[in-house]
Amino acid sequence: MADIPHPFDPLSLDEIETAINIVKKAHGELHFNIVTLQEPRKAEMTAWLATPETAPRPKRIADVVVIAPGGKVYDGLVDLAEPKIIKWELLDGEQPIITMEELQLVEHIVRKDPGVIEQCAISGIPAEDMHKVYCDPWTIGYDERFGSSTRLQQALMYYRPELDNCQYQYPLDFCPIYDADKGEIIAIDIPKIRRPLSRAPAIDYHPAAVEARGGYRDTLKPINITQPEGVSFKLTGREIEWQNWKLHIGFSYREGIVLNNITFSDKGTVRPLFYRLSLAEMVVPYGNPEHPHQRKHALDQGEYGAGYMANSLSLGCDCKGAIHYLDAHFPTRAGGLRTIENAICIHEEDAGILFKHTDFRDESVIVTRGRKLVIQQIFTAANYEYVVAWILHQDGTIQPEIKLTGILNTYAMLPDEDTHGWGTQVFPGVNAHNHQHLFCLRVDPNIDGPNNTVFLSDAVPSPAPVGSPENFYGNGFYARRTKLATTGEAKTDYDGAVSRTWEICNPNVLNPVSRKPVSYKLVSREIPGLLPKEGSLVWKRAAFARHAVHVTKYRDDQLWPAGRHVPQTSGEPSRGLPEWIGDGTESVDNTDIVLWHTWGLTHFPAPEDFPVMPAEPMTLLLRPRNFFTGNPVMDVPPSFCSTPSQVVAGGAGVRDATDAVSRLAFGAPVAGA
Amino acid sequence: MADIPHPFDPLSLDEIETAINIVKKAHGELHFNIVTLQEPRKAEMTAWLATPETAPRPKRIADVVVIAPGGKVYDGLVDLAEPKIIKWELLDGEQPIITMEELQLVEHIVRKDPGVIEQCAISGIPAEDMHKVYCDPWTIGYDERFGSSTRLQQALMYYRPELDNCQYQYPLDFCPIYDADKGEIIAIDIPKIRRPLSRAPAIDYHPAAVEARGGYRDTLKPINITQPEGVSFKLTGREIEWQNWKLHIGFSYREGIVLNNITFSDKGTVRPLFYRLSLAEMVVPYGNPEHPHQRKHALDQGEYGAGYMANSLSLGCDCKGAIHYLDAHFPTRAGGLRTIENAICIHEEDAGILFKHTDFRDESVIVTRGRKLVIQQIFTAANYEYVVAWILHQDGTIQPEIKLTGILNTYAMLPDEDTHGWGTQVFPGVNAHNHQHLFCLRVDPNIDGPNNTVFLSDAVPSPAPVGSPENFYGNGFYARRTKLATTGEAKTDYDGAVSRTWEICNPNVLNPVSRKPVSYKLVSREIPGLLPKEGSLVWKRAAFARHAVHVTKYRDDQLWPAGRHVPQTSGEPSRGLPEWIGDGTESVDNTDIVLWHTWGLTHFPAPEDFPVMPAEPMTLLLRPRNFFTGNPVMDVPPSFCSTPSQVVAGGAGVRDATDAVSRLAFGAPVAGA
Ligand SMILES: [Co+2]
Ligand SMILES: [Co+2]
Repeated sequence: MADIPHPFDPLSLDEIETAINIVKKAHGELHFNIVTLQEPRKAEMTAWLATPETAPRPKRIADVVVIAPGGKVYDGLVDLAEPKIIKWELLDGEQPIITMEELQLVEHIVRKDPGVIEQCAISGIPAEDMHKVYCDPWTIGYDERFGSSTRLQQALMYYRPELDNCQYQYPLDFCPIYDADKGEIIAIDIPKIRRPLSRAPAIDYHPAAVEARGGYRDTLKPINITQPEGVSFKLTGREIEWQNWKLHIGFSYREGIVLNNITFSDKGTVRPLFYRLSLAEMVVPYGNPEHPHQRKHALDQGEYGAGYMANSLSLGCDCKGAIHYLDAHFPTRAGGLRTIENAICIHEEDAGILFKHTDFRDESVIVTRGRKLVIQQIFTAANYEYVVAWILHQDGTIQPEIKLTGILNTYAMLPDEDTHGWGTQVFPGVNAHNHQHLFCLRVDPNIDGPNNTVFLSDAVPSPAPVGSPENFYGNGFYARRTKLATTGEAKTDYDGAVSRTWEICNPNVLNPVSRKPVSYKLVSREIPGLLPKEGSLVWKRAAFARHAVHVTKYRDDQLWPAGRHVPQTSGEPSRGLPEWIGDGTESVDNTDIVLWHTWGLTHFPAPEDFPVMPAEPMTLLLRPRNFFTGNPVMDVPPSFCSTPSQVVAGGAGVRDATDAVSRLAFGAPVAGA
Repeated sequence: MADIPHPFDPLSLDEIETAINIVKKAHGELHFNIVTLQEPRKAEMTAWLATPETAPRPKRIADVVVIAPGGKVYDGLVDLAEPKIIKWELLDGEQPIITMEELQLVEHIVRKDPGVIEQCAISGIPAEDMHKVYCDPWTIGYDERFGSSTRLQQALMYYRPELDNCQYQYPLDFCPIYDADKGEIIAIDIPKIRRPLSRAPAIDYHPAAVEARGGYRDTLKPINITQPEGVSFKLTGREIEWQNWKLHIGFSYREGIVLNNITFSDKGTVRPLFYRLSLAEMVVPYGNPEHPHQRKHALDQGEYGAGYMANSLSLGCDCKGAIHYLDAHFPTRAGGLRTIENAICIHEEDAGILFKHTDFRDESVIVTRGRKLVIQQIFTAANYEYVVAWILHQDGTIQPEIKLTGILNTYAMLPDEDTHGWGTQVFPGVNAHNHQHLFCLRVDPNIDGPNNTVFLSDAVPSPAPVGSPENFYGNGFYARRTKLATTGEAKTDYDGAVSRTWEICNPNVLNPVSRKPVSYKLVSREIPGLLPKEGSLVWKRAAFARHAVHVTKYRDDQLWPAGRHVPQTSGEPSRGLPEWIGDGTESVDNTDIVLWHTWGLTHFPAPEDFPVMPAEPMTLLLRPRNFFTGNPVMDVPPSFCSTPSQVVAGGAGVRDATDAVSRLAFGAPVAGA
């Protein structure tokens, strides 16, 4: 290895190779499912971060999952320095993540399966057209007929009349089930009502189709974004410094971008904010109760991996301006190496007005423009794409943002079929089912230190009635705070009626001005709640989505709220969060805690979403409140500032740093116009 | 007049002058409060818009409000073509909007008032320092001791040790009341507990203060935004065309930006969307129930005017890139003319990824970048600034966005005083009271025609229990729609638990694909509800804020939901919406309707907000749903597109229009890095 890696760094290609080689040497040829960093133990890591010169450097450990012949799954750990296998454990009835390579296999199998060929014929596809049959292989979710011991995929079936057609226009109505050990189709789910292949003329989004419909619009003039003097951020390894922020940017097969050791320099004092931030899990439950659509509820991160599915980003397309990229490295199934180039992009954007004030008396004014830093990835989960951005603002705000684009999951429908409200006809013969996109944000706070407490903050009126001495005019209102002292109390839902926020406080540190505990506030408004009912399959498997917020005491390796190995879990018992929360009596008050926040949106499809969806954004804020003693961005250079005394002096001494590159849209104004 | 104005155009300088001259001629010297366009009657306007060649052109009418000697208020109308006064009416006990000029007067009066001088001395300010005493004059709201017949202002008092200090650091504890007719202070509200002037050293945001604290950060490199080939929008008069959109941009003293006759060209067919959109009113209730703070509940648009308070925007400061500006013209109090140059800015912004999809099989991909059009103004309401942007997206989405910045309203506090939760100490000796910012968006829809209906759309689970045949796996969910058939039924609140949206439908036009009525959906999540209680002063005066949504039948001149003349209304009876809604039985089903949406945020101040607030954004979406038959932006040229057949052909024929101006942040990558 060229450089000594930072303990938070993802495994390098060399490290992955080292782990693979030692496992192969010990156990022969295997399918490598996961070779990833076992994140450093927090106690060791914290000690090392505090005094890197003297504290022992946390070891580099590879977390390895393999599938051996016969479908045997092993969990292992490799100490990379020795190198030595330090744990090797056979799992029972657990299915590790399904890799892209495994997904790729299924389509070839279904095309040759006699049962599938027969069903295609029933749908109206002759055997010689089987090369035009496609499938999106998904984990099976959980199907009680097959359980968890056999590694399965369900094949959502489509047809492409021509190679360049969007296949989601031509869904087929049956669903083969693939056995990964046997490498064959073991069952086909066939609906009672058959829906033959639609023959509607295609509507495609590729250039030839657009040209055939009249061509591209020619009315869009280019916008250029440049940073002639370079960018304002600095990278040392994977540690980035920008506008008082410092943090480490990791990346895992599972969560994609992982931010660690986030600090903010407050007038020269480096203050810790978060030990770790990530999107830790998600679930996309579909709302059509007819069999077998209940199986459509992808837990994309645990089942496929936001890192494994990451796009290789491209300059000037996915990202505009002055961009820095980071690559991602993974094993292949056979034990080779795979690199996703440009898996993460990092860039700055102008953020509009940061602050402004004009004194109406004399028009003395300050205008200061803001800047933001965007750390972004995109992943493709079969039909959908998720654009995940971590946006840092100069004022200490962290803004995770997700944009949803790509293509709807679709199912066949008859010309006059009633969707019963479970879906919408988005194209003739195409039923797009209702669904939710629910994301679990894992927040490991470190607000001026590890011992933190979460409070609800609800905006409520004074309890005193109108006309009473305490509230004569009826206008009294305040922030009612409720401490979430235990894991049980901390299971909380959103309440829009009181504009509920969650305050992550350090109760040991009071803001010297407001005398309130220093805090970061979770301001999140897109919290639809889990629509699958209590006791439902999704409710059991994706227990993290039952509440908007859970809080647990920090423990190493409790990273993923639906559990470590997610495919084919039955939800009996529910994995992850419910196991960690237990009876709900554990204290999460003034201790090292983790907050889990599930947010997202409910998607009732419409024709506008088809055949490809204009991006739909969702976002939330983690905002410093009572954290700083004053506005932390007053030292951002203003574009323009005049003071009352400068106005009196006829403008002498005003600070004018106006951007001279901006122009009037239509040239200089005509005098008197 | 040089050009014939569009009937929606604001009055030109010439037209304002014509109106003033004819009023002066008839009624002598007066104080001109308002001279604005009386918007064309909708029936006439609609006829003219349909056939401008043959239909009569709506007349240009000036709506005039003056204050005559003795405080007599007149409402008048002037037909500008004749020109002729066609209405002249003396009002009884109504106070028209308070102009900037009226506000400017008060500070000079308070400095000379013996009572104020005495109170300043009690606060610790010697008489020779009265030139360092400042006030923010506000309308009095409503004070039952004085009623509505006398034109009043309350003076929120401050001190500036030095001319360039931010005065909000040094609030005084008493509140003089100014009588505009007498031109003198008629009362002073003095609290029981006195709070002498704070002597805390100032924290200022002006350059000298920042330099004294160590200077500006030098770590921010410039970002340039340019459009070398010009902008993509076209203006004809005040009608703008951009990316299938066409609309008229108006501006009034009251609402600021007014958008009219908004249409969208759908594959060449011009489809009406909205007849008119504006921010029609707002209220900022403060939550401290102690007298006289209940009077702090500015209805800024009705009481001062978002147009009258508009900033003159400056290129490269308020707006970056290629900008077009529009000016605003108003009368002065004495009957002169006033122009706010650059009151509106119009520009495009890159909007990130518009849509993307990668086929995981072969990595064939399309990436298309989006663009948005921003029509923006900023207004200063004493301490606060509001940045109001109307953002149009290529996919038919309209996104009003408001950013709050400027300075908190502040009040004095003793060093160890308990704020009782009604406020926060944001600086030593400075109590910033809890408050809300509630905005009323007026939506006059025209979704494929004027006859529209509003439905609630709530995301709810299937009523069938888990295990039942209809919902065996418990995953069924759907959009429950509820028609708002009458004005009474249409008084509706937000319900976050069901992700409530409001669908503005045209029940007469079904989407041919989904067979659902064409609609625009109001997706709004920042809806705190009015915290002043039922029966409270604010609840009575700002009745529009009682519910998230009201719907009324369209009537000319029902533009402002707190009534026409807002200052000093008692709320008995409540003006505006409650008058128009009456007993709630009027049908708003399949007729010409107006939807009123109140949204905003509740602000519990923190030291981060002081002495000047980093901008806090709030936004909502008006989104086409079941309006188009497919994705309306497929003809936006992609940055990059490869199809499966092109991938097979080794990339031959791919469409590559990658932005060549973007650059790597740190130059070319090192090989193998
Ligand atoms: Co969706
Ligand atoms: Co505020």
